[in-house]
Amino acid sequence: MLTPLTRIDHMGIACVNLEERISLYESAFGFTVVSREVNEEQGIREAVLELAGGSPGSPYLQLFEPLRPDTAVGRFIARRGEGLHHIGYGVTDVAAAMAALSTGGLQVIDKRPRHGSMGASIAFVHPSSVGGVLTELVQAANEA
Amino acid sequence: MLTPLTRIDHMGIACVNLEERISLYESAFGFTVVSREVNEEQGIREAVLELAGGSPGSPYLQLFEPLRPDTAVGRFIARRGEGLHHIGYGVTDVAAAMAALSTGGLQVIDKRPRHGSMGASIAFVHPSSVGGVLTELVQAANEA
Repeated sequence: MLTPLTRIDHMGIACVNLEERISLYESAFGFTVVSREVNEEQGIREAVLELAGGSPGSPYLQLFEPLRPDTAVGRFIARRGEGLHHIGYGVTDVAAAMAALSTGGLQVIDKRPRHGSMGASIAFVHPSSVGGVLTELVQAANEA
Repeated sequence: MLTPLTRIDHMGIACVNLEERISLYESAFGFTVVSREVNEEQGIREAVLELAGGSPGSPYLQLFEPLRPDTAVGRFIARRGEGLHHIGYGVTDVAAAMAALSTGGLQVIDKRPRHGSMGASIAFVHPSSVGGVLTELVQAANEA
């Protein structure tokens, strides 16, 4: 294979109103917010939500709203509406994974790793290379 | 909360050509097919893919292609293209979860549980009730 994925890391969900969506996932399903941040580079305000009782390495939900309409996520919502946006997968070395996938002919969007949730180093693979699925490679902070 | 979710169970991905997508996830990322089936009721041909070394209860990918254009998934692909379709979450009792969410005002699509992947009992919650995310409740066969 081109690069081994170590786990399904998270599901990324684009929201029009982050606080309303957090309330929904908390009150309907029992999710808990474990992290919040603003990522200026990605143009989003985000929250990480987990289920109680998950085992270590369990995937999380990343909910985010665009900081402005003229951001990638703002344009995504204008075009497709809010909802499922990407899947993030764990890798042990994001730079090596980017190189392996590029060599294998997949279109890696980022030229170099950038800053993701909770200190991770990340990169995105273009949906046209993965059957319409925007795919994020995640090297967690504790794997750096 | 209305109903506790026990885990992120799977990611559902709609495909134009199931076999091509399976090959991609195997050759690029190291996924392995662990189950295949045809679900006539849902109008899909599907495969369940897992990563090596996942802990018990790790989520999986459900890749599926429509059996015919005049199916829910066929119409989804015609409207939005292939790609992310739904998230499935574990519940201990799908009928109880359906009742609790309906009582709480969420629109549960199914009137009664139906047959899902690998013997599970499932039901879908309408995306309009979950911020644009088609949401599947999954009572696994070993929880029946």
